[in-house]
Amino acid sequence: MHTDLVAALDIGGTKIAGALVDGDGTLRVRVQRPTPAREDSETVMAAVAEVLAELSASPLWGRVTALGIGSAGPVDAAAGTVSPVNVPAWRDFPLVERVRAATGGLPVELVCDGVAIAAAEHWMGAARGHDNALCMVVSTGVGGGLVLGGALHPGPSGNAGHIGHISVDLDGDPCPCGARGCVERIASGPNIARRALESGWLPGPDGDATAAAVAAAARAGDPVAVASFERAAQALAAGIAATATLVEIDIAVIGGGVAGAGEVLFAPLRSALRRYATLSFVQKLTVAPAVMGNDAGLVGAAAAAFAARVAADGAVSV
Amino acid sequence: MHTDLVAALDIGGTKIAGALVDGDGTLRVRVQRPTPAREDSETVMAAVAEVLAELSASPLWGRVTALGIGSAGPVDAAAGTVSPVNVPAWRDFPLVERVRAATGGLPVELVCDGVAIAAAEHWMGAARGHDNALCMVVSTGVGGGLVLGGALHPGPSGNAGHIGHISVDLDGDPCPCGARGCVERIASGPNIARRALESGWLPGPDGDATAAAVAAAARAGDPVAVASFERAAQALAAGIAATATLVEIDIAVIGGGVAGAGEVLFAPLRSALRRYATLSFVQKLTVAPAVMGNDAGLVGAAAAAFAARVAADGAVSV
Repeated sequence: MHTDLVAALDIGGTKIAGALVDGDGTLRVRVQRPTPAREDSETVMAAVAEVLAELSASPLWGRVTALGIGSAGPVDAAAGTVSPVNVPAWRDFPLVERVRAATGGLPVELVCDGVAIAAAEHWMGAARGHDNALCMVVSTGVGGGLVLGGALHPGPSGNAGHIGHISVDLDGDPCPCGARGCVERIASGPNIARRALESGWLPGPDGDATAAAVAAAARAGDPVAVASFERAAQALAAGIAATATLVEIDIAVIGGGVAGAGEVLFAPLRSALRRYATLSFVQKLTVAPAVMGNDAGLVGAAAAAFAARVAADGAVSV
Repeated sequence: MHTDLVAALDIGGTKIAGALVDGDGTLRVRVQRPTPAREDSETVMAAVAEVLAELSASPLWGRVTALGIGSAGPVDAAAGTVSPVNVPAWRDFPLVERVRAATGGLPVELVCDGVAIAAAEHWMGAARGHDNALCMVVSTGVGGGLVLGGALHPGPSGNAGHIGHISVDLDGDPCPCGARGCVERIASGPNIARRALESGWLPGPDGDATAAAVAAAARAGDPVAVASFERAAQALAAGIAATATLVEIDIAVIGGGVAGAGEVLFAPLRSALRRYATLSFVQKLTVAPAVMGNDAGLVGAAAAAFAARVAADGAVSV
């Protein structure tokens, strides 16, 4: 549908990935570097520049008309800066300006990684055809992004959909963000594992005490492991129901490592959702596993770039 | 700015109000009937028809090009029906079709009353100039509406912004909606009064045990009364912070009887908001009292009608 391409960057605490993406969402070139997350800001930027240099060496580079960035948050899309929690040297780092300079002045669109995931699932994945959707990643943290009225809703700063840090338990445990009882504080992988251990669950002989191991124990019928996933599901359901009640989504797409637990998570989640999504206009809300996999961030950053280009020139649809 | 007018209906459990509204938001004609809320559905509709007949008797009626309805919810804007909790005879009542027929085929726009309030505050009130706002009514219930990206966000069914029924206390007290720990269950006027009474607050010699009496006691320094408002403020703050974290609003406008308590509510609300709105992109969030008063529903229904007309013909801006 497009003969031109966009470049995409997916910047996280572990890796910096880049791709050239066509209008069908296909990654035509893909490159990756580890994130030197503990180094100084210019060292991190140098890794980004290497990824861009490798992309621009492709014979396809001449067809690239825009660049999308999905970055670990928080970001400030208005200022063009990023302050990823897991990259301490980058605080208000002017990533948009630096990437624009490194690419000879391409238009650059910046969104938070959760927003990029939502763009990907809406464009090519489980939220396709849904005009109002929440897409989440439940993993080490809990992130998300929103599609409203058929379009991505990044919000003015590019961070909208940050469901991991809404409080569903206002007197609950302190969250590293400063609030209490946030969805992430209850439902992230490390918190599922912590709660199971605190309640007496014992890891197997291999010593694996991750949420994946708790999920395996839950599948085998361990009641403490089951209860820890049920509590995570309850918090996710309260957060998803709140989102639907506030902005009228009809589907919540859930990806990330914890979602890999499958029915251990999704069965209690569907059950809890019926208890929290009670008003008539949210009762048809469904949940579905994400389908876009590891490249969701790249595909979504590309989608955001295509969408921004559409908004700018009103000429192309994806 | 407009030479034409819109008609507006504000339908609640107590009154049915109607007006002809010009493009400056001025009510040129205003009429009202009590809602026969306990009568059968046709008796309620007859009261609406009387309001419309009175409006259409005005010499200004010939300049009316559209009609907006703000109704007690839930509503179903897609189906054109309303099911107000406090008007039991109206369940999936085809209000849009009936009003259209009664007005000779005017275009009719239906939104929930909270959405109408948001439209009014954004057009003429405390949210003017804010592209991203939550407007709330804290009264017998807790309702709300959203402005996102400079435009009203009613959602597909017209109910978006229903902040009263998001859970901020997932293990909390059962709410009549079926969920637990909803904002309304903690922060509405009746719940402020109930909590004060349960905690040992005694009404004065006049026997007034409403939230207004609790507010007066709080102003006089009664610690139980103060604590009940602080708890309401905490729940409102958690809900407002959740909304900002999800969709990036920069102001929450609060009206309704409970907001009339003034600093008894707003001081602890601002304090609690700092504890729950912690992420960088929501720290500038402010709260402000509503300014539109009793006619907010009518002005907002008119704003929704003007906005729908703009969306339909792309020709006029309000």
